Amino acid sequence: MNSINFAAACPIPIQQYPHVLLAHGGGGKLMHQLLRQVFFAAFGNPALDTQHDSAVLDFPSGRLAFTTDSYVVDPLFFPGGNIGHLAVYGTVNDLAMVGARPLAISVGLILEEGFSRQELARVLDALREAADRAGVKIVTGDTKVVPRGKADRIFITTAGIGVYDHGLAITGAGARPGDLILVNGPIGDHGIAVMAAREGLELQTKVVSDCAPLNGLVAELLAEAGEAVHALRDPTRGGVATTLKEIARQSGVGITLREEALPVRKEVQGVCALLGLDPLYVANEGKLLACVAPAAADRLLARLRAHPLGREAAVIGHVTDVQPGRVQLETVVGGLRAVEMLAGEQLPRIC
Amino acid sequence: MNSINFAAACPIPIQQYPHVLLAHGGGGKLMHQLLRQVFFAAFGNPALDTQHDSAVLDFPSGRLAFTTDSYVVDPLFFPGGNIGHLAVYGTVNDLAMVGARPLAISVGLILEEGFSRQELARVLDALREAADRAGVKIVTGDTKVVPRGKADRIFITTAGIGVYDHGLAITGAGARPGDLILVNGPIGDHGIAVMAAREGLELQTKVVSDCAPLNGLVAELLAEAGEAVHALRDPTRGGVATTLKEIARQSGVGITLREEALPVRKEVQGVCALLGLDPLYVANEGKLLACVAPAAADRLLARLRAHPLGREAAVIGHVTDVQPGRVQLETVVGGLRAVEMLAGEQLPRIC
Repeated sequence: MNSINFAAACPIPIQQYPHVLLAHGGGGKLMHQLLRQVFFAAFGNPALDTQHDSAVLDFPSGRLAFTTDSYVVDPLFFPGGNIGHLAVYGTVNDLAMVGARPLAISVGLILEEGFSRQELARVLDALREAADRAGVKIVTGDTKVVPRGKADRIFITTAGIGVYDHGLAITGAGARPGDLILVNGPIGDHGIAVMAAREGLELQTKVVSDCAPLNGLVAELLAEAGEAVHALRDPTRGGVATTLKEIARQSGVGITLREEALPVRKEVQGVCALLGLDPLYVANEGKLLACVAPAAADRLLARLRAHPLGREAAVIGHVTDVQPGRVQLETVVGGLRAVEMLAGEQLPRIC
Repeated sequence: MNSINFAAACPIPIQQYPHVLLAHGGGGKLMHQLLRQVFFAAFGNPALDTQHDSAVLDFPSGRLAFTTDSYVVDPLFFPGGNIGHLAVYGTVNDLAMVGARPLAISVGLILEEGFSRQELARVLDALREAADRAGVKIVTGDTKVVPRGKADRIFITTAGIGVYDHGLAITGAGARPGDLILVNGPIGDHGIAVMAAREGLELQTKVVSDCAPLNGLVAELLAEAGEAVHALRDPTRGGVATTLKEIARQSGVGITLREEALPVRKEVQGVCALLGLDPLYVANEGKLLACVAPAAADRLLARLRAHPLGREAAVIGHVTDVQPGRVQLETVVGGLRAVEMLAGEQLPRIC
């Protein structure tokens, strides 16, 4: 990130530009003004305010987690949030899923020339709001502007670093035969909320994205029985089906899901039926799948349910030692169906 | 980042697709195949190979640097490098400019549907080559694909973390009156190489981008006389003029540049004259500006010149205590000219 000084006079009244200009990405005066008036006003904190090429952070311990994700969701605004919330929660959640405590976030913006300053402000507000809610700081960033037609309004890439307050090693590869599989609530809400907004159905369906930071929920699980949490993953793109398939492969185990135990809102089922989608493959942005030791499952489930983000938590299946890498669904009518990864493109630009 | 398993069978021969498909970003089978066949083959290392939501790294000490930049350069390929080199060196250099030793890099890719697989492979090769040259690991990443016309081939956002092997605090805010200002070589090469490629002039001009990792050069300076290195910055977007203006403002000092001391290649001067550009405002991707204590300047200059990236290093000016925030140029004919920040957009999409 380039450094910026705020003490300088501001000869060009940038407020007069209701749209992002190519010159706002040029590295010069206009970019500095945009940064001062919009970005630093939104995210100001000591590390960011130093305005150096990198944020310098004190760092408490000997292990860190590091992740990145790009966000290209369409539409930018949907019931329950916008691209700014997603960009923070997605990265926070990736850190939480390896058992790390999210500490700091970077934000890289690619703006299309002509993007509305007002919409930009809403996205930046969302980034700040989401960071506050997740308890992380946005400490460094970058902005590029490309000519009209060379991007779609705004793309955001966040990276995050997290620290460890414990000695546990949690991943998607630790599931063990006998583990029970917990989910913290109904699946498919995010994907359906975005699809409904895209199709102009949002008022009829009332489905709201579940996008939320999961680090608090993970902290609860680890505090209750960290040793019993064998695997964690958040079922985003590709949905619960694809994520469980990944856990099965990485852990070298089989997984059996019970269809009747899968929490799916009636409205989500309705839109899925309408659009020909399977909720098992629909993206979530505030859900986690935990493979936990059966002896601790009741306590962990209770702990999830005691948290605002886990009130509708459920046991949805179990881990087996047969057919490693295979996921199967016990259907409501008693049959068994193989669950495969999403083969192609179900819902483009869902996050 | 989503996790990926390589042991799985690959029923769809992805090699048959010479272009990136929307489905390659869908989170499912095709995305996993793209990751396995292209990304992991390019960047494989233990942290990346774990394929978890975040990379988990051992971390040696109590202070870290964290930075991000997005890259939207046009054209993607130019004399001396491509967008992949830029994406690694830019982030490595931002870490080096605060005196940190770059440790790990994340890569977020936004691909346009239809982008050539062959060009993607060249960019990924460049990312790996640049990471190897800089001595950093690419440990985590993410890929999104947007429909044709919604992005321009490929955008890359890298983030980086760096560690400290010393107790120095180096930024752009530490310049002191009396300091001499060093640059490690001729200015403007990157911007002119990209502009020439864009205008189809590259064969005539033979200007090659200076893009390079500066962490080795910074390590040399710190080893020689770390305490004497008061401020470091790399003059990228906005060029030497804008960067010196930032140093002057952040440090609360004046800066005087000597025009006759500024190293500028004849070819760069020629293209600048042709296109109406001032090399002082043209981007560099392998240059640093160092404000150093005068007593150590000779030794530091010699150390720069002994390094392959500093053979043409020069003293280009000095820091004063008059008119804080002001940068002035002593012209060849003996006049004084105020140097301002780049006001608008000189060279869009230069990095």
